[in-house]
Amino acid sequence: MSENKEMVSTKIFSVPEGELFHLESGIKLRGLEVAYETYGELNEEGTNTILVCHALSMDAHAAGYHAGSKKPGWWHELIGPGKAIDTDRYFVVCSNILGGCMGTSGPKSVDPETGKPYGLSFPVISIGDMVNAQKRLLKFLGVERLLAVTGGSMGGMQALEWTVKYPDMVASCIPIATTYKHSAQQIAFDEVGRQAIMADPDWHGGNYYGKTLPASGLAVARMVGHITYMSYKSMDKKFGRMLTKDKLGYGFTTEFEVEGYLRYRGDNFVKRFDANSYLYITKAMDHFDLQGGGDLFKIFRGVKSRFLVITFSSDWLYPPEQLKELVKALKMNGIDVTYCEVNSDYGHDAFLLEFEVQSKLISGFLAKTYSKLNR
Amino acid sequence: MSENKEMVSTKIFSVPEGELFHLESGIKLRGLEVAYETYGELNEEGTNTILVCHALSMDAHAAGYHAGSKKPGWWHELIGPGKAIDTDRYFVVCSNILGGCMGTSGPKSVDPETGKPYGLSFPVISIGDMVNAQKRLLKFLGVERLLAVTGGSMGGMQALEWTVKYPDMVASCIPIATTYKHSAQQIAFDEVGRQAIMADPDWHGGNYYGKTLPASGLAVARMVGHITYMSYKSMDKKFGRMLTKDKLGYGFTTEFEVEGYLRYRGDNFVKRFDANSYLYITKAMDHFDLQGGGDLFKIFRGVKSRFLVITFSSDWLYPPEQLKELVKALKMNGIDVTYCEVNSDYGHDAFLLEFEVQSKLISGFLAKTYSKLNR
Repeated sequence: MSENKEMVSTKIFSVPEGELFHLESGIKLRGLEVAYETYGELNEEGTNTILVCHALSMDAHAAGYHAGSKKPGWWHELIGPGKAIDTDRYFVVCSNILGGCMGTSGPKSVDPETGKPYGLSFPVISIGDMVNAQKRLLKFLGVERLLAVTGGSMGGMQALEWTVKYPDMVASCIPIATTYKHSAQQIAFDEVGRQAIMADPDWHGGNYYGKTLPASGLAVARMVGHITYMSYKSMDKKFGRMLTKDKLGYGFTTEFEVEGYLRYRGDNFVKRFDANSYLYITKAMDHFDLQGGGDLFKIFRGVKSRFLVITFSSDWLYPPEQLKELVKALKMNGIDVTYCEVNSDYGHDAFLLEFEVQSKLISGFLAKTYSKLNR
Repeated sequence: MSENKEMVSTKIFSVPEGELFHLESGIKLRGLEVAYETYGELNEEGTNTILVCHALSMDAHAAGYHAGSKKPGWWHELIGPGKAIDTDRYFVVCSNILGGCMGTSGPKSVDPETGKPYGLSFPVISIGDMVNAQKRLLKFLGVERLLAVTGGSMGGMQALEWTVKYPDMVASCIPIATTYKHSAQQIAFDEVGRQAIMADPDWHGGNYYGKTLPASGLAVARMVGHITYMSYKSMDKKFGRMLTKDKLGYGFTTEFEVEGYLRYRGDNFVKRFDANSYLYITKAMDHFDLQGGGDLFKIFRGVKSRFLVITFSSDWLYPPEQLKELVKALKMNGIDVTYCEVNSDYGHDAFLLEFEVQSKLISGFLAKTYSKLNR
């Protein structure tokens, strides 16, 4: 593991004055801003760019360290000099998603029309819109083609969307712990989170900026999320029935470690995440359906990427079965696809924890794609 | 399937004036009331009583029809003349649990000390306390011994508690889709429900009786619950990505069938269930731990019941693995135990849906127990 302390910072790309960003809904967004980070250098041939897409609650800070922070980016173990996504070799781009709250335009951004935060007047966005915002950023960065696009969870949805939407731009794709369409259960968990937020009286129909935040609703949403990110086994190993006190009492305060953990995670999330963004992003995931009621086989007919598909055995939020259907549809199209179900107890969170096996899989796959592209 | 329209009604047993009910916490409850129903007749030998224990959101109305209602009790398919739990042969008792809100003493009951509803001044209760309230009711009914005690989910916890607490009273036990101790994940889901309720500003620390009810918090809790009761597959079969509208829109109203179902279930629950009871009952489940940090084998050393243990393959809330550990501990004690994992896609809800296979398993097991007891 590299001990380099690469210092990085998040930059903001703003579209030129007057440029409109076209959403899939038909709505045109003024003044798009995209927060992003890059690691490594773009080569002269423009063949070494890897786009890393983030999951629901993350941001553009995928690797390295921000000034004054001891905590590296969320995929730091995979991205850096000499690592699987080797920044000595590749040019890595990660941007905050459209609809987010970490620098890219979203519901808490100021609407140039009114001079006030959008709130729920921000247009509903899709995974396709997120991809298009990334594409606009890449154009600004002078990137015309991607060596690879990758990401876990919702990041994997964006990666898959890239291969279908812009087949000529994507040489390879590494979707991890994700799906090609949201299932009923996945929609259901998201809906519970949204209901919890919208039930919070401080939510005020989304108009809470500058006032009390809908903290308790967002905390409950985050708690539900956290349960789905862990496996039955990893929760039992980490917490079991451990107590925060000497013994069980007779009240409704925190008694079990797992309760304390969830409350802590929920309360912490509220400090850094915008409740409206949670609504918009989960909605985009729920709408995500590459199949669109049609034939999955046909959807991938024009796709030109190679694929490395990674799932985790104990991931019950995005179970391996879903991506196996994707793998089948890809193979039926004669697409070069490697599938790996990693044995892990970490559940969905494994894509943020199982670095050793992911490193091996990803580094080999990228090297092969790179040599194919540059021979 | 029997087409008899057996009319039944819920009765209330009140302890005699001045009698105190001793809780495991050491607190003594005045004026205990227990709501119950009975089906069939107690035989002269007193050897034909089956105690049916209900799950979190149910009540004493396990079978038959209430006057004016077209909906039978929650286990009507299993209980009745000629059915698996044959009321021509057995005397069946089902009572609302202590801490509940369907007639038995709980947080919405009036505290005789103050003349006002208890709210959070109602003492925290345990699965053991629920069992003791049932025992008190049985004494009133003249029942000294149980042919069998059975129940699904939390009902199964009560059944297991009976065999350990009162081994001489219980000839057989049929725990279904349950556990001998709540796991971290089970506690976590309960805690999310509690936090959702307590985050509702209408909850007012539990003092909401006669005022606006904490409806949105309880609805969110119920929604979380419902997801855990179904399997990934059963949700996908029932709802998939079906829409409530012509096509996907761009807002936060109900769009998917599964969203509508959860909102409906949540809103419906609020009309019939007390939010404080939800807190007390989930807490009792979370505290439930027959093992108590000790050796599971030793816990069942004095147990004298025969066991029929039923689990369902797709039940991820109370996964079969947990009860297999119980079965092992029972077998190591030389206890007569039959274990059956039923193949079902219905998830945890299967104990309320898979009647055919449960009927066969239960009727045979009860007949054998009865003949052993009466030979």
